[in-house]
Amino acid sequence: MELWFTEKQTPAFGITAKVTETFVAEKTEFQDLAMLDTEEFGRMLVLDGMVMTTIKDEFVYHEMVAHPALFTHPNPKQVLVVGGGDGGVIREILKHPEVEKAVLVEIDGKVIEYSKKYLPEISGELDNPRVEVLVNDGYMHIIESKNQYDVIMVDSTEPVGPAAPLFERGFYQGIYEALREDGIFVAQTDNPWFKSDLIRKVTKDVKEIFPIVRVYGANIPTYPSGLWTFTMGSKAHDPLQVDISKIPELQTKYYSPRLHQAAFVLPKFVEDLVR
Amino acid sequence: MELWFTEKQTPAFGITAKVTETFVAEKTEFQDLAMLDTEEFGRMLVLDGMVMTTIKDEFVYHEMVAHPALFTHPNPKQVLVVGGGDGGVIREILKHPEVEKAVLVEIDGKVIEYSKKYLPEISGELDNPRVEVLVNDGYMHIIESKNQYDVIMVDSTEPVGPAAPLFERGFYQGIYEALREDGIFVAQTDNPWFKSDLIRKVTKDVKEIFPIVRVYGANIPTYPSGLWTFTMGSKAHDPLQVDISKIPELQTKYYSPRLHQAAFVLPKFVEDLVR
Repeated sequence: MELWFTEKQTPAFGITAKVTETFVAEKTEFQDLAMLDTEEFGRMLVLDGMVMTTIKDEFVYHEMVAHPALFTHPNPKQVLVVGGGDGGVIREILKHPEVEKAVLVEIDGKVIEYSKKYLPEISGELDNPRVEVLVNDGYMHIIESKNQYDVIMVDSTEPVGPAAPLFERGFYQGIYEALREDGIFVAQTDNPWFKSDLIRKVTKDVKEIFPIVRVYGANIPTYPSGLWTFTMGSKAHDPLQVDISKIPELQTKYYSPRLHQAAFVLPKFVEDLVR
Repeated sequence: MELWFTEKQTPAFGITAKVTETFVAEKTEFQDLAMLDTEEFGRMLVLDGMVMTTIKDEFVYHEMVAHPALFTHPNPKQVLVVGGGDGGVIREILKHPEVEKAVLVEIDGKVIEYSKKYLPEISGELDNPRVEVLVNDGYMHIIESKNQYDVIMVDSTEPVGPAAPLFERGFYQGIYEALREDGIFVAQTDNPWFKSDLIRKVTKDVKEIFPIVRVYGANIPTYPSGLWTFTMGSKAHDPLQVDISKIPELQTKYYSPRLHQAAFVLPKFVEDLVR
């Protein structure tokens, strides 16, 4: 018997992957969670039917959430990750020695538990002493935090289910207040081929709150359309003004100092969306 | 009944698209040809089971084959397209007024015939008086041409079936000789996620023949991995030395003068492949 997992990325288009083993398939308090092994992409975490991360391509997303913001802020000491229970963004954050503390607020403890068990390559730094893991509502954590973080990263699922409030204007206002005076935030903001309205709305909302707003992209094969966007809102520091000759070469597979600039150059139709 | 077309992009991974109409499904002299209408991407040309082009995302590929090379060459008058029977690359080439003649050599006349009938948005310029269409073997045409073209574009299928010889070292040598003394060629060279060996080999071969070799990428949702590469070999002109402030803004949806540079900045793991 051949088992194939299919994600309908839109009602009429999807990806399909051959599954070699199903480790977990359960309904948590918040969502459907599956942990699969696939022949092409290795182990795969699926939430509410959507691919969250795979061993083969996880580095793209995790590096591209973490490094552009951390190399834009001159001295990021306190960093918050909202969501991201697999631990991949945390792993990348810890590559920056100036970060003293990285706080992870994940609403679904099961994501953390199963990522630790089945995705050790990704989750391996969650027990690092510089990391604080909170199983809690990220929205509430943001609302309760004031002038506290240098960088906030929103590593959420799509704007359905538990992550829906994380795409609202009030959430971005809360992030602004949770950041210190020269703070930066970055959020994953879906893809421009199937979710252009979302990108247009998020960009507009964030521009009303942050003086500097930049959108960049990265290629993620298992995410819809293969082109993912990230939106950065910044109080003082502009990622495009960073002297890339001063960015050290980290151990990365996707991000590079050269890409720090180039990733912000978007295809024309995406430029038009975020203008 | 719901009809879904599935392309296995690797033995264990693929894309699937809901089909609303099947206009053509036949075996031509050279390959299996299907012309479908899909709900998400509109009309779709499929050769040997692989998506060649769709109405929704065709602009990416066609613009990114044509414009980087044409804006690198200072005066491209004679341009050759090998393959590309749908006419999309030809349409983009004609946006450059200095091009006097664009020759298309497509091995399979049926691709031209059905593209004219079902994809007029793409094929509409094939009857333009600046265009010469030859139904012929592109490999032979290259071997027989000497010092003739300013720019040659290889718009082929994957390196299986009729296009296999178009990925061989001897073909690149033939292209070198078919080009004038400051000529440029560009070829689609598949994706770095599933075809890394091919990219490594092509880059190595082309570097043995052309003094300037550059690889760039573009996001194409219906192509494997969503990240497509293009390899440019040039006798004299370097695409990275172009003064992008002098590139005019064409009517495009993907390419822009800003992207002319940024597209050559590759993810680190792809840089490593083509080094």
